[in-house]
Amino acid sequence: MIFMKFQFADRMSKVPRSFVRETLKITEDPEIISFAGGLPSPLSFPVEEIAESTSYLLKKEGEEALQYSTTEGYTPLREYLSNRYSKKGVKVDADHILITNGSQQCLDLVGKVFLNQEDKVLVERPTYLAAIQAFRMYEAQLRSIPLQEDGIDIQALSDALSQDKFKLFYSIPSFQNPTGITYSLEKRKMVAEILEDQPTVFVEDNPYGEIRFRGEDLPPIKSYLADSILFGTFSKIISPGMRMGWMVAPLEVMDKLVVAKQASDLHSNYFTQRVIYQHLTDHNMDHHLQKIRKMYKKQRDLMIQMIEDHFPPGVRYTQPEGGMFLWVTLPEGLSALELFDIALKEKVAFVPGEAFYTENPEKNTLRLNFSNSNEERIEEGMKRLGNAINKMMDI
Amino acid sequence: MIFMKFQFADRMSKVPRSFVRETLKITEDPEIISFAGGLPSPLSFPVEEIAESTSYLLKKEGEEALQYSTTEGYTPLREYLSNRYSKKGVKVDADHILITNGSQQCLDLVGKVFLNQEDKVLVERPTYLAAIQAFRMYEAQLRSIPLQEDGIDIQALSDALSQDKFKLFYSIPSFQNPTGITYSLEKRKMVAEILEDQPTVFVEDNPYGEIRFRGEDLPPIKSYLADSILFGTFSKIISPGMRMGWMVAPLEVMDKLVVAKQASDLHSNYFTQRVIYQHLTDHNMDHHLQKIRKMYKKQRDLMIQMIEDHFPPGVRYTQPEGGMFLWVTLPEGLSALELFDIALKEKVAFVPGEAFYTENPEKNTLRLNFSNSNEERIEEGMKRLGNAINKMMDI
Repeated sequence: MIFMKFQFADRMSKVPRSFVRETLKITEDPEIISFAGGLPSPLSFPVEEIAESTSYLLKKEGEEALQYSTTEGYTPLREYLSNRYSKKGVKVDADHILITNGSQQCLDLVGKVFLNQEDKVLVERPTYLAAIQAFRMYEAQLRSIPLQEDGIDIQALSDALSQDKFKLFYSIPSFQNPTGITYSLEKRKMVAEILEDQPTVFVEDNPYGEIRFRGEDLPPIKSYLADSILFGTFSKIISPGMRMGWMVAPLEVMDKLVVAKQASDLHSNYFTQRVIYQHLTDHNMDHHLQKIRKMYKKQRDLMIQMIEDHFPPGVRYTQPEGGMFLWVTLPEGLSALELFDIALKEKVAFVPGEAFYTENPEKNTLRLNFSNSNEERIEEGMKRLGNAINKMMDI
Repeated sequence: MIFMKFQFADRMSKVPRSFVRETLKITEDPEIISFAGGLPSPLSFPVEEIAESTSYLLKKEGEEALQYSTTEGYTPLREYLSNRYSKKGVKVDADHILITNGSQQCLDLVGKVFLNQEDKVLVERPTYLAAIQAFRMYEAQLRSIPLQEDGIDIQALSDALSQDKFKLFYSIPSFQNPTGITYSLEKRKMVAEILEDQPTVFVEDNPYGEIRFRGEDLPPIKSYLADSILFGTFSKIISPGMRMGWMVAPLEVMDKLVVAKQASDLHSNYFTQRVIYQHLTDHNMDHHLQKIRKMYKKQRDLMIQMIEDHFPPGVRYTQPEGGMFLWVTLPEGLSALELFDIALKEKVAFVPGEAFYTENPEKNTLRLNFSNSNEERIEEGMKRLGNAINKMMDI
């Protein structure tokens, strides 16, 4: 056999394998307590309900639920989502909704539909690392705008927009990944106002919006900015393994998204769309959400308590009102990558912050996930992490 | 609200909405007998078995089956596929297999991983129209090589390869879509031989290989050409709505495919992967295939009988040994698009051949699907189509 040297597309040289992905492999060791992944708690999955709904669906609908379907997605499911937005005071027509393979495919489709090589995209600093990967796959240039405690730095955003042309601004305004930061109501309105007259398309990712366990619900920025794009997902409220999400877009954009989706995979898993819709019809989503919120609040509170009890002074951290992540900043000059190695020896893992920056990473930052570990493991793991920090700082 | 003029990526201007997709809308009218879609028979779906397997899986595995998973896919499912290839005499390691969202995502990922703008791709003439869409999405230039009764025109293929550089050669060697043509064993070996020393990567799509109802099974071209890529899918043998397929690739390519897949959607629906694996474990796939083959053979034989009985002389057609399609060639000078309008009035539909050509379409061709209609509808629909042809030809 001759060894063929494959000639890959240029874009492939711009996207390395994900650090988190590689990390997850290391942390498969069951002795390691991992706060690295972005996994929901398995206890939050409605397993029995899904089993019942599937069985009922296949009895009732049979073959139809296994056949090819439309690219846009199952109409009653899109109508359910439209109604759910209405109840929250956001007007979204069902025909503005495209069913996707989770939020990650929303990112990919937005990239496919909007980005030419060298097009410029604004992101938050830091931002979701798989968004960096998705946009780089379309050879875009990313520029990041700092996050403050109450959301994006408005001045920096305006400055960037006045200096250069950006195709997209990608933002996660609620319980952001990785920082847990949430935009205030005022900043939501300001972002909408600034972008109203710009050619830059606002792309709003909202995977955690339903998992608020403190404070008041805030409307998506899309409510103030009709010509923007909004993502949603069932990953954090039903099952991430089902890879089922959606995006809301103006009709002119939907038309292109449908063409891109069709070329990508014809349509999202129809069987699963039907199972999820059946589940949503048979059960009250809000009861289920109450359960998740209560569980995550407890875990988040405990994690913060453990930071206060076991981390040295000078370590800062965010106090998210929802979602799945805390963002920790070590004292200036310390390296989270170095801490990662020490922590692994203590049998605890996290994601060093570097992965979430598009340029000039703040090396003393790290992300902790509190959703995937029960209280016992949070308690033990955070003690170990405290030990690792103390060791590194020679305390 | 200000109407924003969205600036889409250049690639979007190269891919129109699919004709077939638009056609399917017209043919939703239940009075129309449609041979247009590429749908399997709903009677071929193992509905009860899927219901049982899902219920057992969720009882046994619970939460695990709903959690995030690895990009490559569920290992036991990849091992099952590897074993199935072995039994057919094709050596494929499980770690060379990536689970995808049907064959369509295989096309998209191959495009993503290999194609720069203006890269050249060889396809069959005519070819699967969603492959044309997928490759055009990456702004590739397509060139088509004529199909003969026993497969690709070998001389034309060699000539093309000696005249120009092609990144990929995309082929469907068994029961091709749209023509139903199958490459002979000799031509399979010749294609492998020609491509052995070329930088062109051979991409082999095999959605219908398991649905042979006449003649002898032939090995995939991949058995003679290790450094090639092979697609497979559960769409035609279990359920198309589940959007579940796979691709086999050399490790060097797998590595890139995994990065591209991760940026596209993290991984394929894990719940469905587990359901399919459970189904394959609980049931004998070959018994199920026997049932499908028997059904499709009957339907294909009847469709051919009806052509002979009701179409005017001078109409030619292929006699496929498997798959789901017949390819019809009207007498020179006639237009299948014109026939389409007449046929709709007779309440019968098909796909005009034009959609399957990358350039200079043969306008007197059309595709008929025999898998999705029962015998009663084939009989009635083919009479109507015969009438339409006779009307157009003024017979």
